[in-house]
Amino acid sequence: MPIVTLITDFGLKDGNVGVMKGVILRYAPETQIIDLSHNIAPQNIPEAALVLYRSAPYFPKGSIHVVVVDPGVGTDRRPIAAQLGDQYYIGPDNGVITSLLEYTESKGFLTEFIHLNNPNYWLPQISDVFHGRDIFAPVAGHLAAGVEIRKLGTSISSPVRLSFPKPVRTEYGWSGEVIHVDHFGNISSNIRREHLGDVVPLKVKLRDTDISHWVRTFGMRPTGDLVALYGSTGNLIISVVNGSAVERLAIELGDRVEVIFPS
Amino acid sequence: MPIVTLITDFGLKDGNVGVMKGVILRYAPETQIIDLSHNIAPQNIPEAALVLYRSAPYFPKGSIHVVVVDPGVGTDRRPIAAQLGDQYYIGPDNGVITSLLEYTESKGFLTEFIHLNNPNYWLPQISDVFHGRDIFAPVAGHLAAGVEIRKLGTSISSPVRLSFPKPVRTEYGWSGEVIHVDHFGNISSNIRREHLGDVVPLKVKLRDTDISHWVRTFGMRPTGDLVALYGSTGNLIISVVNGSAVERLAIELGDRVEVIFPS
Amino acid sequence: MPIVTLITDFGLKDGNVGVMKGVILRYAPETQIIDLSHNIAPQNIPEAALVLYRSAPYFPKGSIHVVVVDPGVGTDRRPIAAQLGDQYYIGPDNGVITSLLEYTESKGFLTEFIHLNNPNYWLPQISDVFHGRDIFAPVAGHLAAGVEIRKLGTSISSPVRLSFPKPVRTEYGWSGEVIHVDHFGNISSNIRREHLGDVVPLKVKLRDTDISHWVRTFGMRPTGDLVALYGSTGNLIISVVNGSAVERLAIELGDRVEVIFPS
Repeated sequence: MPIVTLITDFGLKDGNVGVMKGVILRYAPETQIIDLSHNIAPQNIPEAALVLYRSAPYFPKGSIHVVVVDPGVGTDRRPIAAQLGDQYYIGPDNGVITSLLEYTESKGFLTEFIHLNNPNYWLPQISDVFHGRDIFAPVAGHLAAGVEIRKLGTSISSPVRLSFPKPVRTEYGWSGEVIHVDHFGNISSNIRREHLGDVVPLKVKLRDTDISHWVRTFGMRPTGDLVALYGSTGNLIISVVNGSAVERLAIELGDRVEVIFPS
Repeated sequence: MPIVTLITDFGLKDGNVGVMKGVILRYAPETQIIDLSHNIAPQNIPEAALVLYRSAPYFPKGSIHVVVVDPGVGTDRRPIAAQLGDQYYIGPDNGVITSLLEYTESKGFLTEFIHLNNPNYWLPQISDVFHGRDIFAPVAGHLAAGVEIRKLGTSISSPVRLSFPKPVRTEYGWSGEVIHVDHFGNISSNIRREHLGDVVPLKVKLRDTDISHWVRTFGMRPTGDLVALYGSTGNLIISVVNGSAVERLAIELGDRVEVIFPS
Repeated sequence: MPIVTLITDFGLKDGNVGVMKGVILRYAPETQIIDLSHNIAPQNIPEAALVLYRSAPYFPKGSIHVVVVDPGVGTDRRPIAAQLGDQYYIGPDNGVITSLLEYTESKGFLTEFIHLNNPNYWLPQISDVFHGRDIFAPVAGHLAAGVEIRKLGTSISSPVRLSFPKPVRTEYGWSGEVIHVDHFGNISSNIRREHLGDVVPLKVKLRDTDISHWVRTFGMRPTGDLVALYGSTGNLIISVVNGSAVERLAIELGDRVEVIFPS
């Protein structure tokens, strides 16, 4: 069975996600359709990029990821499909694939980009405000049903890339920033395991707060302790054991995170 | 694979939606089960009717739509199944099918209504408070598995119909009302594209607020502008570009929306 | 098609639930994956136990229930699989199966417990913080694909059991406590139909409030009335007709519920 995943900022109350699934199933009735998130903050492309980047590598070969966070719907922003290694992307050409694309390129995997300009693979009627239903869902359905990606439109070479902030090496360690807060209130930074290597930090600082405990997992400290550790995809995160770090520390996306190495 | 969609006011935390799916799969293990919405406001039948009406026409032939917004559960309100063109409805006879039924009749498609009074197609034990699990899910499973609709109960002719407010033609254009606010805060009216035809309104008024910009899609005006346009199913909507119209304008369902034609 | 259900406290915004599904489908591509709840309060094992207990008996034979509410992830708490009658459990050995296990034993059904210590059935790389993705999802996938439960690890005899409060018989009836509040604001107690038998209570008391109306279902009293009745799984619940009991009465989990029998 082909797999199609969905990431949107549509929420779950209006039926729009379900309608996209209905359209996909018209063309590929046996598809496994998996929700990744429909609670992306409205128009927040970097957040959707993060969910896509963290999820796609765990999916079977040939999975199709449809991401519709699309403030430019109905304007001249292009609809695209991309092959990124053994995974596919379908959605607006808005840079949401940036992190996954960089990862794919760093591995030396194949990439290919198609401008979705062949209306034979769209719904017969196209609205100006819901291309998720009218273009991306039917294209995903056709791709899931075995249509070759090149038939869906014209080959292009330069999809939009966004520039996400990267952590920098400092005299004392690394300096990065807050990029995500998860459902539990864990605060995620853009500093990653590969930046630190085998070094166990002497200290982690979040804005003005020293995070005193560096741990391997949550349960190593008592409830309520503030800890730093690697999250499930290798990012340095700040957590409160069995609690919410974001409730404890009034932080915002973009706030500074520093790692101090032992001297 | 047969398709069953679900619309309820059950929310997603208690497991009740999952239990219905478990029951459906007992009878039809290969079913594609699609969530349309489980965040209908409690007991809000008009809201569920709107989601059903907007979604069902996009689903493949033979799809079965189970809608359980059921304040009358366990009383003498009838459980029914309906064939509406090439789609099926299962749920309480509470008028939730009204808009989809009117659409089906306007197209001249076949309709048929069955009182679900054959307990052979229910769970062996029926609670007084959860017919979604005990009656509607097993009936949907049997229908998905190929049981003929007429076997599920007795044919009836007059399902409950609700009376939803319709917009009226005025001296200067049209007058309607607010019928929905979506996840993004877009405000939807009951005035539709077919009412206005090719006329581009001179002005749209929402209660006391003039909506000055009539646009084809959101991205045609800068962030923060208040705009009027047609939504994805042809209703006139009022939006704030990359923002929330309902946060800007303190409106309620039923508030007046007026369209002024050019003179 | 095999069935895997999921209960977690992960919420729906970060993509973690979707990633687990992607991993399951690697090993068992034809699986029906059903969400029971991802809105369990963080680290609330009793709440997850209740959802599991209420849901599992409605699922087809052979269904696999993965429950990841796991404050001890990465510590020495054991990952386990359990066969409970004709259903399977996979997750941490944290007592979340207690109620379902007691039910299974009361029916005289087979039980079996396996310590999941065979890494051949895990992902190649195991994080310290997300065993849902790295251990439980792949194990569920293998089990769904037909691997025998005993191959997944070593047989054990005593899984963790939690002690949940039980109602007691009093001079005048029964005394129990509030154990759950559902999406509608219905307040559920641990007093059950089997405790009361055929007796219709004279009165139900929730802390200091007398619930005057004992009903069979909601629609038997007008909107706004406070009523007591049996919920869909046989627990005594307190409700406001077409309203929210928890908004009306400021109650908390653990508050006393009393049933007074007719004298």
